Amino acid sequence: MGSFKGHALPGSFFLIGGLWWTGKFSFCHATRRNKSLGSSRRASRASQCRLELLESSLMLLFAVVGMLAEQFAAGGPRLRLYEASENRWKDLMNWQHATMYLFFSLAGAASLLVHATDVPPLALDRLALALAFFTEGFLFLYHLHGRSMLDVHVHQMLLFAVFGQALVVFLEVFHRGNVALELLRSALCLLQGSWFWQIGYVLYPPSGTQWDLTDHNNMMFITMCFCWHLAVSMVTVGALYCAISCAVRSRLRRTPPVEMGLLKLRDGELESDDETV
Amino acid sequence: MGSFKGHALPGSFFLIGGLWWTGKFSFCHATRRNKSLGSSRRASRASQCRLELLESSLMLLFAVVGMLAEQFAAGGPRLRLYEASENRWKDLMNWQHATMYLFFSLAGAASLLVHATDVPPLALDRLALALAFFTEGFLFLYHLHGRSMLDVHVHQMLLFAVFGQALVVFLEVFHRGNVALELLRSALCLLQGSWFWQIGYVLYPPSGTQWDLTDHNNMMFITMCFCWHLAVSMVTVGALYCAISCAVRSRLRRTPPVEMGLLKLRDGELESDDETV
Amino acid sequence: MGSFKGHALPGSFFLIGGLWWTGKFSFCHATRRNKSLGSSRRASRASQCRLELLESSLMLLFAVVGMLAEQFAAGGPRLRLYEASENRWKDLMNWQHATMYLFFSLAGAASLLVHATDVPPLALDRLALALAFFTEGFLFLYHLHGRSMLDVHVHQMLLFAVFGQALVVFLEVFHRGNVALELLRSALCLLQGSWFWQIGYVLYPPSGTQWDLTDHNNMMFITMCFCWHLAVSMVTVGALYCAISCAVRSRLRRTPPVEMGLLKLRDGELESDDETV
Amino acid sequence: MGSFKGHALPGSFFLIGGLWWTGKFSFCHATRRNKSLGSSRRASRASQCRLELLESSLMLLFAVVGMLAEQFAAGGPRLRLYEASENRWKDLMNWQHATMYLFFSLAGAASLLVHATDVPPLALDRLALALAFFTEGFLFLYHLHGRSMLDVHVHQMLLFAVFGQALVVFLEVFHRGNVALELLRSALCLLQGSWFWQIGYVLYPPSGTQWDLTDHNNMMFITMCFCWHLAVSMVTVGALYCAISCAVRSRLRRTPPVEMGLLKLRDGELESDDETV
Repeated sequence: MGSFKGHALPGSFFLIGGLWWTGKFSFCHATRRNKSLGSSRRASRASQCRLELLESSLMLLFAVVGMLAEQFAAGGPRLRLYEASENRWKDLMNWQHATMYLFFSLAGAASLLVHATDVPPLALDRLALALAFFTEGFLFLYHLHGRSMLDVHVHQMLLFAVFGQALVVFLEVFHRGNVALELLRSALCLLQGSWFWQIGYVLYPPSGTQWDLTDHNNMMFITMCFCWHLAVSMVTVGALYCAISCAVRSRLRRTPPVEMGLLKLRDGELESDDETV
Repeated sequence: MGSFKGHALPGSFFLIGGLWWTGKFSFCHATRRNKSLGSSRRASRASQCRLELLESSLMLLFAVVGMLAEQFAAGGPRLRLYEASENRWKDLMNWQHATMYLFFSLAGAASLLVHATDVPPLALDRLALALAFFTEGFLFLYHLHGRSMLDVHVHQMLLFAVFGQALVVFLEVFHRGNVALELLRSALCLLQGSWFWQIGYVLYPPSGTQWDLTDHNNMMFITMCFCWHLAVSMVTVGALYCAISCAVRSRLRRTPPVEMGLLKLRDGELESDDETV
Repeated sequence: MGSFKGHALPGSFFLIGGLWWTGKFSFCHATRRNKSLGSSRRASRASQCRLELLESSLMLLFAVVGMLAEQFAAGGPRLRLYEASENRWKDLMNWQHATMYLFFSLAGAASLLVHATDVPPLALDRLALALAFFTEGFLFLYHLHGRSMLDVHVHQMLLFAVFGQALVVFLEVFHRGNVALELLRSALCLLQGSWFWQIGYVLYPPSGTQWDLTDHNNMMFITMCFCWHLAVSMVTVGALYCAISCAVRSRLRRTPPVEMGLLKLRDGELESDDETV
Repeated sequence: MGSFKGHALPGSFFLIGGLWWTGKFSFCHATRRNKSLGSSRRASRASQCRLELLESSLMLLFAVVGMLAEQFAAGGPRLRLYEASENRWKDLMNWQHATMYLFFSLAGAASLLVHATDVPPLALDRLALALAFFTEGFLFLYHLHGRSMLDVHVHQMLLFAVFGQALVVFLEVFHRGNVALELLRSALCLLQGSWFWQIGYVLYPPSGTQWDLTDHNNMMFITMCFCWHLAVSMVTVGALYCAISCAVRSRLRRTPPVEMGLLKLRDGELESDDETV
C-alpha cells in the first residue's frame, strides 16, 4: 500500500462492514427475542435471508473490484507475475493484496451459495470467512521483515485484531447464532477498520510532521492507543445494539399481534432453521 | 506505578475481588444444589440479582475512582496527553493505568446494564470482563521493554495469572454457571492480588535491602514462589467454598420447607433464567 | 528425502487422500441429508462401513509399504540404527520418515479395529489420526536446524497445514460428523499434498535453474503461493462437494421410495449410530 | 535431581500411574458399555467409587512422602529456605521438586474430598489435577536456563508430554467421562514415565560412556526416540484396553442377568451421576 490512501481505503471498508454487522446482528437478535410480542415472523425471516444474500453479493462485488483495482490500477502488475527481463518478481505487494481480496471473494461466493441454494451445509459461510481473515493475518505476518520498529509494532497490533476475528468466526462454526460472538466479531471489525486509519496517520501523516519510528515512548503510546480504539468500538457496538433493540421492541409492541395462531404452529420449524449445522 | 504502594493498591483490590467472587459463587452454587431442601427460592434469586447489581456498581465506582486518581493525583497528567513544549508524551505510565481502569469500568457498566435491564444478552457481562483482563495483560506485555531480568520475570508471572483469567472468563461465555470455572477465576484473582503485593516486596522492599535483580537463583526462587501463591489461593478458595457450602446446607436444613408446592411449579422457569445465553 | 521424487511421492499420497476424503464425506453428508427422499438406507449404511474398512486397510497398507521402502530401498538403513564402527547414527532421515509412516500405520490399525470390531470406542480412530498428523509436524519442526532461509520457510508453511490438520482432526473427536470440519480436513490434506510438490519444485527444480534461497522477495512470493494453494484446494473441495451432492440428490429422486414404512421405524436407531462417542 | 535415580523414581511413579489409569478407565468404560448384559451394577458403581478413593489416597500418600523425602533425605534443606550466613537460597532444586509434589498432594486431597463427601462439585478433582500437571510443566519450563543443548532438548520433549497432559485433564473438566480423553491421558502419563527413564539414561548413562550433549545428530535421534516412546505407550494403552474390554465382556456374558428388572428402574438415576458437572 505504502500511502495514506492505501490504508484509509481498506479501513473504510472494514468500518462499514463492522457497522453493518452490528446492525444486522442486533436486529436479528432483537426480533428473535421479541417473537412472543407477535410480528410478521414469516416476513422477517424472509427479509433476513434477503439481508444475507445482499451482504454476500456486496462482499463478492467489493472483493472482485478490489482485486481488479490492485491488478489494473496505475502501477499494477496487470496479471504479470515475473519480470523475466529483470529476473525478479513484479509488484509483489499488489499481488499480496489481490490475494487477500481473493479470499474475501471466495468467502462471499461461499456465503452466496449457502444462502441462495441449500446444497452446501450452513456452517461453510463462517468457515470460509474465518479462512479469509486467517489468510489476511497470515500474509501480514510475513509482510513485516526488515521494517522499522514502530512500523512493525502497528502492524502487530493489527494482527491481534485480524487473528482475533479469525478465531471468533471459527468459533461461530460451532456456536452459530451466539450473539456474544457476533457482537465481538462486529467490534473487532470496527477496531480493524479504525486501526487501518490510525496506521495511515502514523506512517504517512497528512500533516507532514513525521513520527520518530524508533522512539520507545511512541511505541508505548501506540499500544495504549490500540486499547482506546478497542474501547471506542466496544462502546459503539454496545450503543448501536441497545438503540436497535429498543427500536425493534417498541415497534413490535405497537404492531397488533394478528397472526399469533399461525405463528405458534410454525414456531418450532422456523426456529430450527437457525441451528442446523 | 514505580513504588511499593503503587503495587499494593491494585493488589488489595484484586484480593478483595477474589474473596468476594469466592463467596458469591460458593453461596450461589450451594443454594442451587440444596434447592430440594426448600428455602425461600424466590427471595434467594432476588438477592442474587441484587448481589450482581452491587458487584457491578462497585466495580464501576472503583474503576472510575481509579481513573480519576491516576489523572488528577499529585504528579498525574490531568488529561493532557502531549507536552508540546518538550515534544514528548506526558506521564505515559499514568495514562496506561487509567486505560486499564477504563476497561474495568466498561465491564462494570456492561454488567450493570445486563442485570438492571434485560436489553443486552446475558453473556455480555462475561465478554466485557474477559476483554478487561485481556487488555490489562496486553498493556503489561508491552510494558516490560528494557527492564532488568528479575523485573521482567515477576511481571511475566503476573501475565500468566492475568491472561489465564481472561481465558477462563472467555470460556464462561460458553459455559456460564460452570462452578469449576468460577472457582478457578476466583483463585486466579486471589493469585493476581497477592502477586501484586509480592512484586512490591521484590522491587521496592520496605525493609530497604535491595534484591539482586540479575541473580539467576533469585529468578528460580521467584518462579517457585509464584507456585506457592497459587497453592495458597487454591487452598483459600477451597476452604471458603467448603465452609460456605456447609453453612448454607445446615441453615437450609433448619428452615421448614413451607413453600414446596409453589416452588415445584416455578422451578423450571426459575432455573432456565440461569442458562439463557 | 532430499530429492524431487522424495517430495512428490508423499505429495501424491496426500493429494489422493484429500480427494478420497472429499468424496467420502460429500457422499455421506448428501445421503444423510436426503434420507427423506427414500433410498436403501440399510444398504448405504453398510456400504459406508465398507468404505471405512477399505480406507483403513489402504492407509495401513500404504504406511507399512512406506516404512519398508524407507528401510530397505537402496541406501536405507536396513533396521540398523547405530554404526558402531563409525560411532554415529545411521541414516537418521530414513528413520524419521519411517517413524512418520509408523504413526499413520497405527492410525490405520486403530481405525480398522474400531470399524471391524466394536470393542474400542468410536472416537479412537480420530484420536489416532490426530496423533499421526501431530507427530508428522513434530518431527518436521525439529528437522529444520541449520538450513537456508527459504528452505526453512517452505517447511514452516508445511507445518501450518500439518498442525492445522492435527487440530481439526482432534476437534473431530468432540464434534464427530461435523461436515464443516470434515471438509476443512479434506482441504488441508489437499493443501499438504500440493505443497509437497511445490517444495520439490522450489528446492530441487527439475528445470535445473536454482532458486536463490536467501532472497527475501522469493520468500514473500512463496508465502503468497501457499495462500493460492489453499484457495485452489478450497475451490476443489467446494466444487467436488457440490457435484457429488447434486448427483446423489438427482439419483435419489429417481429411485422410487419403496421402503419408506420400514425406514421410518428404524430411523432413530440408525441415526444414533453416528453420534455414539 | 541430578542423578540417574532422581529421574528413574518419578519415571516409575508415572509409569505405574499410567498403567493404573489405563486399567481403571478401560474397566469402567467396559462395564458401562455392557450394562445391557446385566451384572451387579450397584456393586460395580460402589467398587468404582472405592477405586477413586483408593487412587486419591495413594496419590496423596505418595506426594506427601515425596515432599518429606525431598526435604529430609540426605542433603535436603530440612525446611530451611535461606542460608543467611552465606547469603544465598538453600537447595532450590529440592524445594522446586517438593513444590511439584505439593500440587499433586493438593490434587489428591481435592479428589478425596470430592469422592468421600459430596460437598465440592465433581469437576474439581480434574481441575486440581490439571493445575498439578500445569505447575509441574511451569517449573520445568524455567528450570532449563544455562544448560547444554541436548539437556534442554530432552526436557523440552518432557514439557510436550506434561503440558499435553495438563490440557487433556483440563478438557476433561468439560467432557468428563469422554473415554478418548481418558485413554489419551493414560498414554501421555505412560509417555512421561518412560521419558523420565530415557532422560536418566541420556544424561547419567549407567554404562558410563557419556553422550555428546552438543551433537546435532543426537538431538535428531532424541526427537525421533520421543515419538517411539509415544508409539509404544499408545500401543500399550490400546492392547490393555482391548484385553480388559474382552475380559469384562466375557465375564458378564457368563453371569446370569438376575436383576434386570431392578436395573431398568434405576438406570437413569445411576447414569446421571456420571455427568453431573
